Amino acid sequence: MTYCIAIKTNNRLVFASDSRTNAGPDHVSTYSKMFKWGVPGERQFLLVSAGNLATTQAVVETIERDMKESAAENLLNIKYISAVADYIGRISLEAQNKNNNLGMMAGFNAESTFILGGQIGTEPANIFMIYPQGNHITCPETTPFLQIGEIKYGKPLLDRVITDKTTERDAVRAAMVSMDSTMRSNSTVGPPIEIQSYHINSLQPGKYKIFSANDPYWQLLSSNWAEKLLEAFLKLPELPDFPSDEPELTSVATSTQTQSNFK
Amino acid sequence: MTYCIAIKTNNRLVFASDSRTNAGPDHVSTYSKMFKWGVPGERQFLLVSAGNLATTQAVVETIERDMKESAAENLLNIKYISAVADYIGRISLEAQNKNNNLGMMAGFNAESTFILGGQIGTEPANIFMIYPQGNHITCPETTPFLQIGEIKYGKPLLDRVITDKTTERDAVRAAMVSMDSTMRSNSTVGPPIEIQSYHINSLQPGKYKIFSANDPYWQLLSSNWAEKLLEAFLKLPELPDFPSDEPELTSVATSTQTQSNFK
Repeated sequence: MTYCIAIKTNNRLVFASDSRTNAGPDHVSTYSKMFKWGVPGERQFLLVSAGNLATTQAVVETIERDMKESAAENLLNIKYISAVADYIGRISLEAQNKNNNLGMMAGFNAESTFILGGQIGTEPANIFMIYPQGNHITCPETTPFLQIGEIKYGKPLLDRVITDKTTERDAVRAAMVSMDSTMRSNSTVGPPIEIQSYHINSLQPGKYKIFSANDPYWQLLSSNWAEKLLEAFLKLPELPDFPSDEPELTSVATSTQTQSNFK
Repeated sequence: MTYCIAIKTNNRLVFASDSRTNAGPDHVSTYSKMFKWGVPGERQFLLVSAGNLATTQAVVETIERDMKESAAENLLNIKYISAVADYIGRISLEAQNKNNNLGMMAGFNAESTFILGGQIGTEPANIFMIYPQGNHITCPETTPFLQIGEIKYGKPLLDRVITDKTTERDAVRAAMVSMDSTMRSNSTVGPPIEIQSYHINSLQPGKYKIFSANDPYWQLLSSNWAEKLLEAFLKLPELPDFPSDEPELTSVATSTQTQSNFK
């Protein structure tokens, strides 16, 4: 499984991805799910992926080969970031169909989902989720983030924290805490965790950091969040009195209590 | 969708369930997913369900009819709580097969999953998750809770808070916060929320409360948790310096940056 996050604030695109590719007991391996390409001063792209690893690798290879061979459509000549999403959707679909046509067994799933972020020249920066079907969506302004893979454990925090005014520092920490909660509840998402922060309009790659499982800051953040969460929980308002425990023993021994219905 | 939680501490079984049965825009309706039966001083049972509503209703009706007709096996004469789980698994499977045999269209799913909790006489109290296949599991001692339905959004908090030593007050609040996080991130889980707390060895039904969407305590808990969570987040340790933003412009304009691999 996988968990990737892309956050779009007023001045940053912050991407985070885990690296666990197989959480079976014999073969836990890591593989980077974050890919970056760009021409400084001209265009920058960030891609994270979830799903079939063969499809992902085929897509990445095609992207790089198309640039090398100066294909009619490639990352170096496409003019709009949404057109790049279309292009990646098309090659993803081609890679899946190629695998699906090999006469695979039932249950085989070649699908991959991607999040693309980036900026081309003076066009606005944006992030897109590219579905296995090849089409794509961007995020709503009110909840300016996208997630792929094992998204649910880490969503409540993002829902509460992320707005378009979130600072880079908070966006990175929110991504890290969301990732930490997911790893704690699901062993198929695992370190190292890669974080990339693109400064909108810089057209430079931006900041990048990879956190291993024993990174001191990651461990500090994780233990600190666990403590603070528990502390916050223990300070919640007192429960009101529930209807009295152990009601009067008026029932006959063989009667059954029926369900309490809504009032 | 649905979200139900069952927590087993040293002296309590705490159950919580939502009531949303259809979150389509035209037909959001509510239906209690919590059922209780018992003979005070002798036996107590709690059941929550997720999945096909027709299967759930068929199971509940069969349970009640079997008691009324004093069937060979019914809630009033079974001797062990795990045997009650077997019994419910069997009638659930029968209800599903009946529906599946009606020649339904493809995509129809009659499955229901249940959590049963309770106690019979001097036997230990326990909770069981009953799968659609009719078999069942109990919870591990280290994470003494079970969840069914839309379980992921609300799991990280339970993972951090619940142990077998958790007080009733904390178990109820943890269930409420877990439910609140789920409702905030997923509109197919909704109020009213029912909470039942059974005092182990009391053999009495215990405490029950139903919280509507505008319940003052629920609203207080929800807003207080949102505030405290944000506060905890904003006090997390400062991010270390990321490798410098905007690197030296040494690249030639047409070069592409390749992916940073793990070090």
